[in-house]
Amino acid sequence: MSKSARFIDYFLSHRKVTNELTAKIDRKDYTYKPTPSSMEAQKLVKHIFESTYMFASLANHQEPVPLFNEEDEANLTEQASTYTEKTIEMIQQLSDEDFQQKIDVSKIFGKELSVSELLHTAVDHEIHHKGNLFVYVREMGHTDLPLYVNTN
Amino acid sequence: MSKSARFIDYFLSHRKVTNELTAKIDRKDYTYKPTPSSMEAQKLVKHIFESTYMFASLANHQEPVPLFNEEDEANLTEQASTYTEKTIEMIQQLSDEDFQQKIDVSKIFGKELSVSELLHTAVDHEIHHKGNLFVYVREMGHTDLPLYVNTN
Repeated sequence: MSKSARFIDYFLSHRKVTNELTAKIDRKDYTYKPTPSSMEAQKLVKHIFESTYMFASLANHQEPVPLFNEEDEANLTEQASTYTEKTIEMIQQLSDEDFQQKIDVSKIFGKELSVSELLHTAVDHEIHHKGNLFVYVREMGHTDLPLYVNTN
Repeated sequence: MSKSARFIDYFLSHRKVTNELTAKIDRKDYTYKPTPSSMEAQKLVKHIFESTYMFASLANHQEPVPLFNEEDEANLTEQASTYTEKTIEMIQQLSDEDFQQKIDVSKIFGKELSVSELLHTAVDHEIHHKGNLFVYVREMGHTDLPLYVNTN
Protein backbone atom coordinates (compact mmCIF):
# COMPACT_ATOMS: atom_id res chain seq x y z
CA MET A 1 0.00 0.00 0.00
CA SER A 2 1.42 3.40 -0.96
CA LYS A 3 1.95 6.10 1.66
CA SER A 4 -0.69 8.28 0.00
CA ALA A 5 -3.28 5.46 0.03
CA ARG A 6 -2.56 4.80 3.70
CA PHE A 7 -2.79 8.49 4.52
CA ILE A 8 -6.09 8.83 2.63
CA ASP A 9 -7.53 6.00 4.76
CA TYR A 10 -6.41 7.82 7.88
CA PHE A 11 -7.73 11.17 6.67
CA LEU A 12 -11.11 9.61 5.78
CA SER A 13 -11.40 7.93 9.19
CA HIS A 14 -11.86 11.47 10.52
CA ARG A 15 -13.37 13.25 7.48
CA LYS A 16 -16.27 10.77 7.30
CA VAL A 17 -17.18 11.83 10.85
CA THR A 18 -16.84 15.55 10.01
CA ASN A 19 -19.21 14.98 7.08
CA GLU A 20 -21.64 12.97 9.21
CA LEU A 21 -21.85 15.81 11.76
CA THR A 22 -22.18 18.38 8.95
CA ALA A 23 -25.17 16.49 7.52
CA LYS A 24 -26.95 16.90 10.87
CA ILE A 25 -26.79 20.72 10.78
CA ASP A 26 -30.10 22.24 9.65
CA ARG A 27 -29.87 25.41 7.58
CA LYS A 28 -31.57 27.31 10.43
CA ASP A 29 -28.58 26.38 12.63
CA TYR A 30 -25.89 27.57 10.21
CA THR A 31 -25.42 30.73 12.29
CA TYR A 32 -25.55 28.93 15.67
CA LYS A 33 -22.72 29.70 18.06
CA PRO A 34 -22.39 28.53 21.68
CA THR A 35 -21.11 31.88 23.01
CA PRO A 36 -20.81 35.40 21.57
CA SER A 37 -17.07 34.93 20.98
CA SER A 38 -17.42 31.48 19.29
CA MET A 39 -17.23 30.81 15.55
CA GLU A 40 -20.63 30.26 13.89
CA ALA A 41 -21.34 26.61 12.97
CA GLN A 42 -21.21 27.35 9.25
CA LYS A 43 -17.87 29.14 9.54
CA LEU A 44 -16.42 26.38 11.69
CA VAL A 45 -17.33 23.70 9.13
CA LYS A 46 -15.98 25.77 6.23
CA HIS A 47 -12.80 26.46 8.20
CA ILE A 48 -12.24 22.70 8.61
CA PHE A 49 -12.78 21.95 4.91
CA GLU A 50 -10.75 24.91 3.62
CA SER A 51 -7.82 24.38 6.00
CA THR A 52 -7.32 20.69 5.29
CA TYR A 53 -7.57 21.36 1.53
CA MET A 54 -5.12 24.25 1.86
CA PHE A 55 -2.55 22.10 3.70
CA ALA A 56 -2.93 19.31 1.11
CA SER A 57 -2.42 21.87 -1.66
CA LEU A 58 0.71 23.23 0.00
CA ALA A 59 2.01 19.67 0.35
CA ASN A 60 1.70 19.55 -3.47
CA HIS A 61 3.48 22.90 -3.98
CA GLN A 62 0.20 24.38 -5.19
CA GLU A 63 -1.32 27.70 -4.26
CA PRO A 64 -4.41 26.97 -2.18
CA VAL A 65 -7.60 28.20 -3.86
CA PRO A 66 -10.95 28.24 -2.01
CA LEU A 67 -13.42 26.05 -3.92
CA PHE A 68 -16.46 28.10 -2.90
CA ASN A 69 -16.91 31.83 -2.41
CA GLU A 70 -18.26 33.45 0.74
CA GLU A 71 -21.40 34.33 -1.24
CA ASP A 72 -22.00 30.85 -2.61
CA GLU A 73 -25.42 29.48 -1.89
CA ALA A 74 -24.12 25.92 -1.82
CA ASN A 75 -25.18 24.09 1.29
CA LEU A 76 -22.61 22.61 3.66
CA THR A 77 -23.30 19.02 2.60
CA GLU A 78 -22.42 19.92 -0.99
CA GLN A 79 -19.26 21.65 0.19
CA ALA A 80 -18.38 18.60 2.31
CA SER A 81 -18.58 16.38 -0.74
CA THR A 82 -16.56 18.67 -3.04
CA TYR A 83 -13.83 19.48 -0.52
CA THR A 84 -13.42 15.82 0.45
CA GLU A 85 -13.07 14.75 -3.18
CA LYS A 86 -10.60 17.53 -4.04
CA THR A 87 -8.52 16.94 -0.89
CA ILE A 88 -8.21 13.24 -1.75
CA GLU A 89 -7.10 14.19 -5.30
CA MET A 90 -4.32 16.33 -3.82
CA ILE A 91 -3.04 13.57 -1.55
CA GLN A 92 -3.25 10.95 -4.32
CA GLN A 93 -0.71 12.89 -6.38
CA LEU A 94 2.01 12.42 -3.75
CA SER A 95 4.60 9.67 -4.26
CA ASP A 96 6.20 7.79 -1.37
CA GLU A 97 9.34 9.92 -1.89
CA ASP A 98 7.31 13.15 -1.73
CA PHE A 99 6.34 12.40 1.89
CA GLN A 100 9.92 13.17 3.03
CA GLN A 101 10.20 16.39 1.00
CA LYS A 102 10.42 19.65 2.90
CA ILE A 103 7.78 22.33 2.35
CA ASP A 104 8.45 25.94 3.28
CA VAL A 105 5.51 26.79 5.50
CA SER A 106 7.59 29.09 7.70
CA LYS A 107 5.09 31.93 7.21
CA ILE A 108 2.44 29.77 8.93
CA PHE A 109 4.46 27.57 11.31
CA GLY A 110 7.74 29.44 11.65
CA LYS A 111 9.64 26.51 10.13
CA GLU A 112 9.84 24.01 7.30
CA LEU A 113 7.80 20.81 7.61
CA SER A 114 8.05 17.57 5.69
CA VAL A 115 5.02 16.68 3.57
CA SER A 116 4.25 13.93 6.07
CA GLU A 117 4.38 16.36 9.02
CA LEU A 118 2.29 18.93 7.14
CA LEU A 119 -0.44 16.38 6.32
CA HIS A 120 -0.51 15.12 9.91
CA THR A 121 -0.78 18.72 11.13
CA ALA A 122 -3.75 19.14 8.78
CA VAL A 123 -5.58 16.14 10.27
CA ASP A 124 -4.72 17.19 13.87
CA HIS A 125 -6.27 20.59 13.09
CA GLU A 126 -9.38 18.88 11.69
CA ILE A 127 -9.70 16.56 14.74
CA HIS A 128 -9.51 19.61 17.02
CA HIS A 129 -12.27 21.54 15.26
CA LYS A 130 -14.37 18.41 14.77
CA GLY A 131 -14.11 18.06 18.56
CA ASN A 132 -15.59 21.58 18.84
CA LEU A 133 -18.29 20.66 16.31
CA PHE A 134 -19.41 17.62 18.36
CA VAL A 135 -20.42 19.99 21.19
CA TYR A 136 -22.18 22.38 18.77
CA VAL A 137 -24.21 19.55 17.18
CA ARG A 138 -25.18 18.14 20.57
CA GLU A 139 -26.33 21.64 21.59
CA MET A 140 -28.48 21.76 18.43
CA GLY A 141 -30.43 18.88 19.97
CA HIS A 142 -28.78 15.82 18.42
CA THR A 143 -27.96 13.01 20.83
CA ASP A 144 -27.31 10.18 18.36
CA LEU A 145 -23.76 11.09 17.44
CA PRO A 146 -21.03 8.99 15.80
CA LEU A 147 -17.74 7.98 17.43
CA TYR A 148 -14.97 10.55 16.90
CA VAL A 149 -13.25 8.25 14.38
CA ASN A 150 -14.64 5.83 11.80
CA THR A 151 -12.24 3.13 10.63
CA ASN A 152 -14.83 1.11 8.67
CA MET B 1 16.88 12.61 18.68
CA SER B 2 15.25 9.34 19.71
CA LYS B 3 11.75 8.44 18.57
CA SER B 4 10.49 8.60 22.15
CA ALA B 5 11.97 12.09 22.69
CA ARG B 6 10.37 13.28 19.43
CA PHE B 7 7.04 11.73 20.38
CA ILE B 8 7.14 13.32 23.86
CA ASP B 9 7.61 16.75 22.21
CA TYR B 10 4.58 16.06 20.02
CA PHE B 11 2.50 14.76 22.93
CA LEU B 12 3.41 17.81 25.04
CA SER B 13 2.49 20.21 22.23
CA HIS B 14 -1.11 19.12 22.92
CA ARG B 15 -0.93 18.17 26.61
CA LYS B 16 0.35 21.62 27.60
CA VAL B 17 -2.85 23.04 26.09
CA THR B 18 -5.05 20.44 27.85
CA ASN B 19 -3.40 21.44 31.13
CA GLU B 20 -3.79 25.14 30.39
CA LEU B 21 -7.53 24.69 29.81
CA THR B 22 -7.81 22.49 32.93
CA ALA B 23 -6.25 25.24 35.06
CA LYS B 24 -9.05 27.60 33.98
CA ILE B 25 -11.82 25.35 35.36
CA ASP B 26 -13.07 26.58 38.75
CA ARG B 27 -14.10 23.92 41.22
CA LYS B 28 -17.70 25.20 41.01
CA ASP B 29 -17.64 24.28 37.29
CA TYR B 30 -16.38 20.70 37.74
CA THR B 31 -19.92 19.38 37.18
CA TYR B 32 -20.69 21.73 34.27
CA LYS B 33 -22.03 20.06 31.14
CA PRO B 34 -23.30 21.81 27.99
CA THR B 35 -26.34 19.52 27.52
CA PRO B 36 -28.01 16.82 29.65
CA SER B 37 -26.38 14.05 27.56
CA SER B 38 -22.86 15.58 27.68
CA MET B 39 -20.00 14.44 29.91
CA GLU B 40 -19.38 16.65 32.96
CA ALA B 41 -16.27 18.84 32.69
CA GLN B 42 -14.48 16.96 35.46
CA LYS B 43 -15.19 13.59 33.86
CA LEU B 44 -14.10 14.82 30.45
CA VAL B 45 -10.75 16.02 31.79
CA LYS B 46 -10.17 12.79 33.75
CA HIS B 47 -11.13 10.76 30.67
CA ILE B 48 -8.43 12.54 28.65
CA PHE B 49 -5.71 11.99 31.27
CA GLU B 50 -6.64 8.37 32.01
CA SER B 51 -7.00 7.35 28.36
CA THR B 52 -3.68 8.74 27.18
CA TYR B 53 -1.92 7.18 30.18
CA MET B 54 -3.69 3.86 29.52
CA PHE B 55 -2.59 3.81 25.87
CA ALA B 56 1.00 4.68 26.86
CA SER B 57 0.90 1.84 29.44
CA LEU B 58 -0.38 -0.63 26.84
CA ALA B 59 2.40 0.48 24.48
CA ASN B 60 4.76 -0.63 27.27
CA HIS B 61 3.01 -4.00 27.79
CA GLN B 62 1.85 -2.79 31.19
CA GLU B 63 -1.58 -3.14 32.73
CA PRO B 64 -3.07 0.35 32.91
CA VAL B 65 -3.72 1.46 36.47
CA PRO B 66 -5.70 4.64 37.27
CA LEU B 67 -3.49 6.98 39.32
CA PHE B 68 -6.39 8.50 41.24
CA ASN B 69 -9.61 6.98 42.56
CA GLU B 70 -13.06 8.29 41.81
CA GLU B 71 -13.27 9.45 45.43
CA ASP B 72 -9.96 11.26 45.47
CA GLU B 73 -10.19 14.83 46.57
CA ALA B 74 -7.27 15.85 44.42
CA ASN B 75 -8.08 18.78 42.20
CA LEU B 76 -7.83 18.56 38.43
CA THR B 77 -4.66 20.63 38.25
CA GLU B 78 -2.90 18.16 40.54
CA GLN B 79 -4.15 15.26 38.43
CA ALA B 80 -2.96 17.07 35.28
CA SER B 81 0.53 17.31 36.70
CA THR B 82 0.72 13.67 37.90
CA TYR B 83 -0.76 12.12 34.76
CA THR B 84 1.46 14.20 32.49
CA GLU B 85 4.60 13.17 34.39
CA LYS B 86 3.63 9.46 34.49
CA THR B 87 2.65 9.41 30.81
CA ILE B 88 6.02 10.88 29.84
CA GLU B 89 7.77 8.22 31.96
CA MET B 90 5.92 5.50 30.03
CA ILE B 91 6.92 6.90 26.64
CA GLN B 92 10.54 7.46 27.73
CA GLN B 93 10.96 3.73 28.31
CA LEU B 94 10.36 2.93 24.62
CA SER B 95 13.37 2.32 22.38
CA ASP B 96 13.38 3.21 18.68
CA GLU B 97 12.86 -0.49 17.89
CA ASP B 98 9.87 -0.68 20.23
CA PHE B 99 7.97 1.80 18.04
CA GLN B 100 7.54 -0.86 15.33
CA GLN B 101 6.44 -3.62 17.74
CA LYS B 102 2.89 -4.86 17.50
CA ILE B 103 0.57 -4.57 20.51
CA ASP B 104 -2.54 -6.71 20.80
CA VAL B 105 -5.25 -4.13 21.37
CA SER B 106 -7.84 -6.15 19.44
CA LYS B 107 -10.26 -5.98 22.37
CA ILE B 108 -10.36 -2.20 22.00
CA PHE B 109 -9.68 -1.63 18.29
CA GLY B 110 -10.47 -4.98 16.73
CA LYS B 111 -6.88 -5.34 15.52
CA GLU B 112 -3.23 -5.17 16.44
CA LEU B 113 -1.53 -1.78 16.28
CA SER B 114 2.15 -0.91 16.27
CA VAL B 115 3.38 1.07 19.28
CA SER B 116 3.72 4.08 16.99
CA GLU B 117 0.11 3.74 15.77
CA LEU B 118 -1.15 3.20 19.31
CA LEU B 119 0.59 6.32 20.62
CA HIS B 120 -0.70 8.40 17.70
CA THR B 121 -4.21 7.09 18.36
CA ALA B 122 -3.80 8.22 21.99
CA VAL B 123 -2.92 11.77 20.95
CA ASP B 124 -5.72 11.89 18.32
CA HIS B 125 -8.15 10.90 21.08
CA GLU B 126 -6.78 13.65 23.33
CA ILE B 127 -6.99 16.28 20.55
CA HIS B 128 -10.63 15.30 19.98
CA HIS B 129 -11.67 15.67 23.61
CA LYS B 130 -9.53 18.79 24.07
CA GLY B 131 -11.55 20.19 21.16
CA ASN B 132 -14.70 19.47 23.19
CA LEU B 133 -13.11 21.06 26.25
CA PHE B 134 -12.37 24.32 24.41
CA VAL B 135 -16.13 24.84 23.94
CA TYR B 136 -16.85 23.95 27.59
CA VAL B 137 -14.25 26.42 28.89
CA ARG B 138 -15.52 29.20 26.61
CA GLU B 139 -19.04 28.52 27.91
CA MET B 140 -17.70 28.88 31.48
CA GLY B 141 -16.97 32.49 30.55
CA HIS B 142 -13.33 32.36 29.46
CA THR B 143 -12.51 34.18 26.24
CA ASP B 144 -8.71 34.33 26.51
CA LEU B 145 -7.96 30.82 25.28
CA PRO B 146 -4.72 29.32 23.97
CA LEU B 147 -4.15 28.00 20.44
CA TYR B 148 -5.09 24.31 20.05
CA VAL B 149 -1.40 23.36 19.88
CA ASN B 150 1.67 24.77 21.65
CA THR B 151 5.00 24.03 19.97
CA ASN B 152 7.07 26.35 22.18
